[in-house]
Amino acid sequence: MSYNSTVSAKVSDFEISDLFWSNMMEKVRTQVIPYQWKALNDEIAGTEPSFCIKNFQVAAEITRRNAVTPEEKAKIGSFRGKVFQDSDLAKWLEAVAYSLQVHPNEELEKTADKAIDLICACQQPDGYFDTYYIINGLEKRFTNLKDNHELYVLGHMTEAAVAYYQATGKNKFLETVIRGIDCVDKNIGAEEGKIHGYPGHEILEMALVRLYEITKDPKHLKLAEYFINERGKSPLFFEKETKENENEFAWKDSYFKYQYYQAGLPIREQEKAEGHAVRAVYFYSGVADVAGITEDAGLTEVCRRLWKNIVTRQMYITGGIGQQEYGEAFTYDYDLPNDTAYAETCASIGLAFFAKRMFCMDHDSQYIDVLERALFNGIISGMSLDGKSFFYVNPLEVVPEACEKDRLRSHVKPQRQKWFGCACCPPNIARLLSSIGSYVFAVDGSELYVNLYMGGKLETEVSGQKLTLLSETNYPWDGKISVTYQGEEEVHYTLALRIPGWCRSYQIKVNGEPAVYSLEKGYAKITKTWVDGDSIELIMDMPVAINTSNPKVRENIGRIAISRGPIIYCLEEADNGKDLQMILLGNDPSFHCEYTEDLGGCTVIYSTGWRMINSFNDELYAPKTEPSFERQELKWIPYYTWANRGVGEMLVWVHE
Amino acid sequence: MSYNSTVSAKVSDFEISDLFWSNMMEKVRTQVIPYQWKALNDEIAGTEPSFCIKNFQVAAEITRRNAVTPEEKAKIGSFRGKVFQDSDLAKWLEAVAYSLQVHPNEELEKTADKAIDLICACQQPDGYFDTYYIINGLEKRFTNLKDNHELYVLGHMTEAAVAYYQATGKNKFLETVIRGIDCVDKNIGAEEGKIHGYPGHEILEMALVRLYEITKDPKHLKLAEYFINERGKSPLFFEKETKENENEFAWKDSYFKYQYYQAGLPIREQEKAEGHAVRAVYFYSGVADVAGITEDAGLTEVCRRLWKNIVTRQMYITGGIGQQEYGEAFTYDYDLPNDTAYAETCASIGLAFFAKRMFCMDHDSQYIDVLERALFNGIISGMSLDGKSFFYVNPLEVVPEACEKDRLRSHVKPQRQKWFGCACCPPNIARLLSSIGSYVFAVDGSELYVNLYMGGKLETEVSGQKLTLLSETNYPWDGKISVTYQGEEEVHYTLALRIPGWCRSYQIKVNGEPAVYSLEKGYAKITKTWVDGDSIELIMDMPVAINTSNPKVRENIGRIAISRGPIIYCLEEADNGKDLQMILLGNDPSFHCEYTEDLGGCTVIYSTGWRMINSFNDELYAPKTEPSFERQELKWIPYYTWANRGVGEMLVWVHE
Repeated sequence: MSYNSTVSAKVSDFEISDLFWSNMMEKVRTQVIPYQWKALNDEIAGTEPSFCIKNFQVAAEITRRNAVTPEEKAKIGSFRGKVFQDSDLAKWLEAVAYSLQVHPNEELEKTADKAIDLICACQQPDGYFDTYYIINGLEKRFTNLKDNHELYVLGHMTEAAVAYYQATGKNKFLETVIRGIDCVDKNIGAEEGKIHGYPGHEILEMALVRLYEITKDPKHLKLAEYFINERGKSPLFFEKETKENENEFAWKDSYFKYQYYQAGLPIREQEKAEGHAVRAVYFYSGVADVAGITEDAGLTEVCRRLWKNIVTRQMYITGGIGQQEYGEAFTYDYDLPNDTAYAETCASIGLAFFAKRMFCMDHDSQYIDVLERALFNGIISGMSLDGKSFFYVNPLEVVPEACEKDRLRSHVKPQRQKWFGCACCPPNIARLLSSIGSYVFAVDGSELYVNLYMGGKLETEVSGQKLTLLSETNYPWDGKISVTYQGEEEVHYTLALRIPGWCRSYQIKVNGEPAVYSLEKGYAKITKTWVDGDSIELIMDMPVAINTSNPKVRENIGRIAISRGPIIYCLEEADNGKDLQMILLGNDPSFHCEYTEDLGGCTVIYSTGWRMINSFNDELYAPKTEPSFERQELKWIPYYTWANRGVGEMLVWVHE
Repeated sequence: MSYNSTVSAKVSDFEISDLFWSNMMEKVRTQVIPYQWKALNDEIAGTEPSFCIKNFQVAAEITRRNAVTPEEKAKIGSFRGKVFQDSDLAKWLEAVAYSLQVHPNEELEKTADKAIDLICACQQPDGYFDTYYIINGLEKRFTNLKDNHELYVLGHMTEAAVAYYQATGKNKFLETVIRGIDCVDKNIGAEEGKIHGYPGHEILEMALVRLYEITKDPKHLKLAEYFINERGKSPLFFEKETKENENEFAWKDSYFKYQYYQAGLPIREQEKAEGHAVRAVYFYSGVADVAGITEDAGLTEVCRRLWKNIVTRQMYITGGIGQQEYGEAFTYDYDLPNDTAYAETCASIGLAFFAKRMFCMDHDSQYIDVLERALFNGIISGMSLDGKSFFYVNPLEVVPEACEKDRLRSHVKPQRQKWFGCACCPPNIARLLSSIGSYVFAVDGSELYVNLYMGGKLETEVSGQKLTLLSETNYPWDGKISVTYQGEEEVHYTLALRIPGWCRSYQIKVNGEPAVYSLEKGYAKITKTWVDGDSIELIMDMPVAINTSNPKVRENIGRIAISRGPIIYCLEEADNGKDLQMILLGNDPSFHCEYTEDLGGCTVIYSTGWRMINSFNDELYAPKTEPSFERQELKWIPYYTWANRGVGEMLVWVHE
């Protein structure tokens, strides 16, 4: 059992028939991908232009004409948008790649090919192709690795190129990226004469491992290893770089300092998740990849330690991470304010990346529990039910007036937005949801791990033998999963069914009879020789759960959160009126669950409850008297569906 | 009964013998005033220099030499520090003036005289004497009334000059100020050719009324009236000024806009306290003065409305106002976050100013209740028990780690600081505490209102007859007040004793017998002919009170705050351990009060209580189980004494 022997599913291995997920993917395919293509091309009226494609066109023309002087370049055009604007196209291409695997589309592929041609046309003789520096002066490249995102852009390009190669078999993009990485490898590294640097915004680490899995070129793995081990070593490269190149350092007076970049200490000495949350989990994902592949026990322990710090100290119940807007960053253990939460959609996506890698290392269901928590709550809450607008920030408590009149909560929006100047979250959701099939299962030797439950058809190989499994379920609204083995040949293997952390009671049947299984690290493992038509049923009770927080979380004392299965619920003003803080669930509540076609189709929960009767006249403070309450039926909706019916209050942690 | 017939006490009318207040004043006299003088003279090592006296020296020398060109001026020196740095000297002089009234000190008076000579030496032929513009170019004066604080500085100078005149009978400073105001009057006003402006930071309005009370010059009152009525009229002067002079406008993209300055609407149309809290209450104080003096019923109603909005919607239980750091400003009704509170010391001082004026208008004890609440809690919490360090921000919940690692709480300090770059709070505390005697009582016709209870000797006139009252009390630690009339002549008048809002049960005796009194607007009024030796006893029960908030205050649901008399209590980590959020008072608590010499001498409260037993292992979330608690004796200390024993957690609103 190891990272190296574990084979994760490819997107195309699992054909989704599941309503919940096909709807999500359909939104990405029909709404998000076309909309984003328009956005990249500045074709959306009323929003800030992206300049993304325009930058590539300018850089390609500069390259074609071999323009060198600033005057020659200026005639062709200038760079606009964020320094990492190129990455938006990469993320779009990655989402397209996954979508094409599941849903071939000739026209879309043609559009993508043309976009790739444009990227490739920017490539310099030595492999470099970042438009910001091609346009603004190649002599300045690699002088601000800390903030200028060249290696971040290249990381996204690598992820996209690998996905596109896997989707289409075309290797033009892949080869361009490989040449780009060669260029980095020639300029940055441990050897004398090279810049002893590493990416300011991590992602290239995990992208290199992904590339290595295709190329098997040791240089790709070695570069990832170098980045990971060099980072944070004394004397600090970023400090030196900042000084020598007279770059700015935004966090000088902040307690973050270089830990904003996870670069204040070597990774092996880091005890807690710190700094920018997306960077952190992207980095830890890369670290986990390298730890797994190189079987580095020390690095593996580091990953487990940082994982534990996040999920047992700094994670919202929705799977949101990064508590504060300032630096989009972690704060400190047990600090989980609900109404000022940042909990960026991308950070939860990064947490899912990290979780998947940790699973590959340890084959423990706790990682997938967190992945599932993030996926069904803090990630998909980032997209509206119509797929047309997005949250960057995913709070757990919203009072619209506060968003307007209290600066501390002004980053919290009561409504999703169409697009962002820094448009990282929408394409990140798109690439995650398009590739969701690859999270469903994994194979290690003779063991087939089923991690996510959804309806569909799985085709894979276990111990070299092909097999097909059909699964049917109405998960997450129902806890019953039926899996049928289909195949002419008998196959002997172990089916490892994840028993989610939320599940307190379940039964497993094989061909209608109670199954013989062992429970290991949260997986029910059934080992047998499977014959055509063999059926497995996993029946998980899915009652409404009343959750509490560790009392070290100051904000949640005396409060509860409702969940059912993996879904976290919330109260909205639309259903329950204003002043949600005055609502109490009360003792011995009763619950009634009902599937509804509203809100994109979901199970809503009705419960008994109470509302405080406000005995105050017009004063703010008064001596305590016996409080009084009136009954109120409460309606709870899945957290991810909030803010789809206009602006109003929302609350996850409700008074008990 | 009216504002105009009400005579507030002069500082010197009341000779304080009360331990609580003499200690406070002694700190101001022996610590704050000398320390601040050093600070103004840049003689404090390790703190940012003030440059205040230096600026005056430079401006005086420029004036003496009649230096005009920038070159000539530059040879003499430059202006440094904040644009309103002059006001620090004014505030110091005001505090000195009050101190001299109570505690004559020849040397201190000499120092003050010299400082006044320096101010006067800056005066230009037309009366102007703001050092910022004398040094930087008089041609630019009055071009940024919005932000450059000339009129604010003049307001503080006026307050100081009046106080100094009252303290010493010397009129040099007063005459300088009068000429300064003449200059403003010639340049700013309704008449054609004048600038139709008003102060960016209000205070001159109330200062002018104070001056008018001395000079009886209608022009001084008229200017205050003009400022008040012109403010916020359309088209907005500040908008015009900003545009014409190309000034910056910091709040362009903020919801504040010109309401940051209370200048987005005419005062008569304002419904809620908005914008910068100190400016707001300083302004409302001036409005109340003008409303009272001119008997303007409309304006009086405006004052009552804004007062009501503050105290019934936007005031912490400590008397703190201004909920957010951003703009040091009000947010919105019922928004009273405890751990991100701003509640600037100066804002509570301004609230006391406003309260005093509202009392003069309405003779209602509710105003003094708020004054007392602010005074005993959110104001004196601003100063350490040794008088050597100060809080700008007065939060109601502190976790030291949050101050360091959560940017939203970085304005909250767990320890008082020695001095501030923007040093408004320390001298403001000094001038309020030095003048506390003037808040003790007021006379209106034949009625003598006793507003604050403290031990001392009061000498005043009622209906033209002199009288002396001796009061003895151990307030605020004890609710018993003894007042004795002393005098050879019999005097017929009404003694109006304030029955504080916190008091639920009391008795009044005259010469040992139950008193005959009527209760009017919170005052117990005893009308009789008083003869030498007549004694009155007001005996107020002072039990521990358990307070709750209006449930519209989201943060305080399920929480209580402890008070006794006017004192709000808090828990500190030093007494009760870490994780104060895990402490509960519980039902039917018992209390035990004990006077201690610790913490500067105060009554501490011991109570029964509980601490949650943390049943969580290493997880953040778990299904709800029956919570368990262990008994813990709680020690409550007066809120104003917190943070005098090192850094630790503090909590006012404790779980019930």
